[in-house]
Amino acid sequence: MEYIQQQFDVNFSFGVFFSRHLFDPANTCLSAFLESKASTAFQKKLLVILDGGVAASHPGLAEQISRYLGQVRGFQLAPEIITIAGGESVKNDLPLLFSLVDAIDRYGIDRHSYVIGVGGGSLLDLVGFAAAISHRGVKHIRIPTTVLSQNDSGVGVKNGVNYKGKKNFLGSFAPPAAVFNDSTFLTTLDGRDWRSGMVEAVKVALIRDAAFFEWMEQRAAALTAGDMPGMEELIYRCADLHMAHIGGGGDPFESGSARPLDFGHWSAHKLEQLTNFALRHGEAVSIGIAIDSVYSCLLGWISESDMHRIVSVLKQMQLPVWHPLLEKQDGKPSPVIAGLEEFREHLGGQLTISLLKAIGKGAEVHHIDLDLLYKAADICKNLQ
Amino acid sequence: MEYIQQQFDVNFSFGVFFSRHLFDPANTCLSAFLESKASTAFQKKLLVILDGGVAASHPGLAEQISRYLGQVRGFQLAPEIITIAGGESVKNDLPLLFSLVDAIDRYGIDRHSYVIGVGGGSLLDLVGFAAAISHRGVKHIRIPTTVLSQNDSGVGVKNGVNYKGKKNFLGSFAPPAAVFNDSTFLTTLDGRDWRSGMVEAVKVALIRDAAFFEWMEQRAAALTAGDMPGMEELIYRCADLHMAHIGGGGDPFESGSARPLDFGHWSAHKLEQLTNFALRHGEAVSIGIAIDSVYSCLLGWISESDMHRIVSVLKQMQLPVWHPLLEKQDGKPSPVIAGLEEFREHLGGQLTISLLKAIGKGAEVHHIDLDLLYKAADICKNLQ
Ligand SMILES: NC(=O)c1ccc[n+]([C@@H]2O[C@H](COP(=O)([O-])OP(=O)(O)OC[C@H]3O[C@@H](n4cnc5c(N)ncnc54)[C@H](O)[C@@H]3O)[C@@H](O)[C@H]2O)c1
Ligand SMILES: NC(=O)c1ccc[n+]([C@@H]2O[C@H](COP(=O)([O-])OP(=O)(O)OC[C@H]3O[C@@H](n4cnc5c(N)ncnc54)[C@H](O)[C@@H]3O)[C@@H](O)[C@H]2O)c1
Ligand SMILES: [Zn+2]
Ligand SMILES: [Zn+2]
Repeated sequence: MEYIQQQFDVNFSFGVFFSRHLFDPANTCLSAFLESKASTAFQKKLLVILDGGVAASHPGLAEQISRYLGQVRGFQLAPEIITIAGGESVKNDLPLLFSLVDAIDRYGIDRHSYVIGVGGGSLLDLVGFAAAISHRGVKHIRIPTTVLSQNDSGVGVKNGVNYKGKKNFLGSFAPPAAVFNDSTFLTTLDGRDWRSGMVEAVKVALIRDAAFFEWMEQRAAALTAGDMPGMEELIYRCADLHMAHIGGGGDPFESGSARPLDFGHWSAHKLEQLTNFALRHGEAVSIGIAIDSVYSCLLGWISESDMHRIVSVLKQMQLPVWHPLLEKQDGKPSPVIAGLEEFREHLGGQLTISLLKAIGKGAEVHHIDLDLLYKAADICKNLQ
Repeated sequence: MEYIQQQFDVNFSFGVFFSRHLFDPANTCLSAFLESKASTAFQKKLLVILDGGVAASHPGLAEQISRYLGQVRGFQLAPEIITIAGGESVKNDLPLLFSLVDAIDRYGIDRHSYVIGVGGGSLLDLVGFAAAISHRGVKHIRIPTTVLSQNDSGVGVKNGVNYKGKKNFLGSFAPPAAVFNDSTFLTTLDGRDWRSGMVEAVKVALIRDAAFFEWMEQRAAALTAGDMPGMEELIYRCADLHMAHIGGGGDPFESGSARPLDFGHWSAHKLEQLTNFALRHGEAVSIGIAIDSVYSCLLGWISESDMHRIVSVLKQMQLPVWHPLLEKQDGKPSPVIAGLEEFREHLGGQLTISLLKAIGKGAEVHHIDLDLLYKAADICKNLQ
């Protein structure tokens, strides 16, 4: 038997920029980035997909974007800024996905051109996927407009849409060309989105960075009340920790089963789905962090006082720490807890759940004691 | 403005195995590969998608595959071998793409499991894309059954489907987990597929390996008549050259505009499309090689005698070297030649066309002289 071995490395790199008033003509952050990519030999193209929720909160934004991008040297902006709805529902809409693919085709976006998504994590996931599958991948730029997307989803390498009720069943790993975080967008966020976006910072601090957790503990009330400099710092530190894990964790495209950044997420995904996304992602993760922290405490891994500190931060952020679906329903298993196997399947391979060894230190288990888990859920119910 | 730089490398590696009678119980090539990937902690799954054209020519193949894969330790074969039609039409069928995604879901293929495509390049392109977008990418194994897919498409890193009449508009770069080339499949190939598959070997020899071209020159008649050991050698050398380019060329995922392996392809893609795929890919590329070789000769880059050697090899392989669509139609431009701009758009960026500096040495140009191109087409007409 003859045999040829193929082997090569692909380097991925992109910058995440933190700025304010990104589309102000005086702000050259985005235009300078683009102009650094211009070619003298041909014009590159730009196509913007804008979140309708953002557009509604920022009157004149589409025009401002057109004016700003219309003047970037070496680039030709598509004649239309495509505004679509925002929120999770855009990820449940395959025809919408294909309408974006059609726009990429119609406006001649080639592999040297850029699709720019401006919006929340849902829109960015959809736009990133449309870009990833068109022409075998055109470049995309993310401009996240929510706390969650600025500190987590928007700075990562994944995209995806839901398929037949399965969250993110279709998607790919496709790093962006660049990410631009503009904190001025956050001023118009719904209070629930403002608060729930902080949960990813709590999550990543708990598994990686005790000092950051302590910083949030001290600031929780102010952050919850709208402290913008505090929020900017939270986003920067959270994005940095996420990026360090992806870039330095040895498995950026998640070929193994271990996903420490999914701490608190196994139950969260199921809760979002079972509540038909009435729960925000961050709210569901808050519940997930609470139950997995209490479970870690019941295992004797973290102290009771640390467990209370965690739950207290979440409650100061006015986030839920329990949900009725965590209980047995008429003697039948809790549908969330029954979803553990589905979570294993989504990741593939062995069941791998992140827990806490200490505040700032995650650890993995491959087995969950269901009785203990019900007990943890019960404790959360009493703590809420 | 603050800034965080992300940067990481992803390593891709896979083996291409050359074997015969792959599903014979005595042949452990495939089973040993799989068993080397088994886990003691959990069972991995296998799902096979089989080309209906192959199945029709190899009665009992589905059962043989079931028996073979049913016995691989550590793996569970899906209860059904999914047989779909073969040929280009499967790439024009989005519902079929989604039916494969559904099967991946239904049979619980996770990111540790394998989807195995057995068939021609069309089926492999479809299956590879379905695998690439499900769960953000499940592993796939290719078992190519045509000359073209064994020596070129099946050993590369691309997949794709057609969209709204645009060839490969949707697709991705997703290297396989492994490729198994079994020459016994080739015995049942249609004569046109047998012959036209050799064109990619002519192509890659012309731009990279003069000795290989001379080898084909000497063997052309025998190869055309069905010389199997010759064909096995042709496939091995051609696959090796393609793989060396992808792995060693510095741009495996084609982010630049240069695509030397697309020598002869700019007109071929257009010819396939305009003839509604009545021309095989290899037949279209044969015409493309002829015209670009003659054009190279008119530029003074290759000698007339070398140009005649090239055309002669193609003709000995009983392949076309001209097509009426290369002529002006009622005074209007040839629709193939008018397609140059479309080709540039597909690649993006600057027009980049591969030509020949010598037999065995490709070179690129960014400008094509249309009068000279019409002249080249005219010469091909007279040479056919
Ligand atoms: N790709 C990843 O790695 C990853 C990681 C985590 C989460 N996600 C995904 O992110 C999605 C959630 O994203 P999200 O939390 O950003 O919410 P979202 O995108 O669903 O947006 C929520 C709502 O806020 C609106 N909105 C967005 N920005 C606004 C602003 N500045 N002002 C006013 N309204 C605004 C939107 O129109 C929408 O109605 C989920 O689908 C989740 O799966 C992806
Ligand atoms: N992904 C890539 O990098 C890449 C590169 C080049 C070409 N391609 C694609 O490959 C496709 C062409 O593939 P192809 O030339 O292998 O042909 P094909 O897959 O279209 O198959 C041609 C016909 O042969 C039948 N067939 C296949 N194997 C057979 C066998 N062993 N015995 C009998 N019949 C058999 C099929 O059922 C089909 O009817 C095109 O879509 C082309 O775009 C892809
Ligand atoms: Zn999350
Ligand atoms: Zn080809």
